[in-house]
Amino acid sequence: MHWYDYLGYLGSFLTSITFVPQVYKAWQTKSVGDLSKWMVLIVIASAGIWLVYGIAIESGPVMVANTVVLIFALVLLYFTYRFKS
Amino acid sequence: MHWYDYLGYLGSFLTSITFVPQVYKAWQTKSVGDLSKWMVLIVIASAGIWLVYGIAIESGPVMVANTVVLIFALVLLYFTYRFKS
Repeated sequence: MHWYDYLGYLGSFLTSITFVPQVYKAWQTKSVGDLSKWMVLIVIASAGIWLVYGIAIESGPVMVANTVVLIFALVLLYFTYRFKS
Repeated sequence: MHWYDYLGYLGSFLTSITFVPQVYKAWQTKSVGDLSKWMVLIVIASAGIWLVYGIAIESGPVMVANTVVLIFALVLLYFTYRFKS
């Protein structure tokens, strides 16, 4: 394994947890007015595309990271409707 | 080129523009109270790591996408201080 493979795994891990604090904050405050719904939609589209790409190239880290991102982004999208002011 | 390489490029493009609408919205509203600063910090850390990874594996799309994400995430971080209520 090369030194940069560790960076790849660390990057995958960080990418996976990107939206955890945002989902937590939205849930705590029940407020999402400052969030861009377009951002959330782009994240969902890109994570879905990366997921298919990860399956195609049989890359475990790409599949796992984007599945997690997809789930949290979908929760965030739900919140943008649920908590609409 | 395989069919999934096109997905990779599309994914790179979408990832690049992820924070464009969020930066625009924050700039328009001057309001960032609902944004998680932790999310922004994680994005900055992960984009920085992916950028080094992209340089190491000499992947143009990984370099470009993460450079763009890094720039927009840094602008967003600046906004979270600038527009603090």
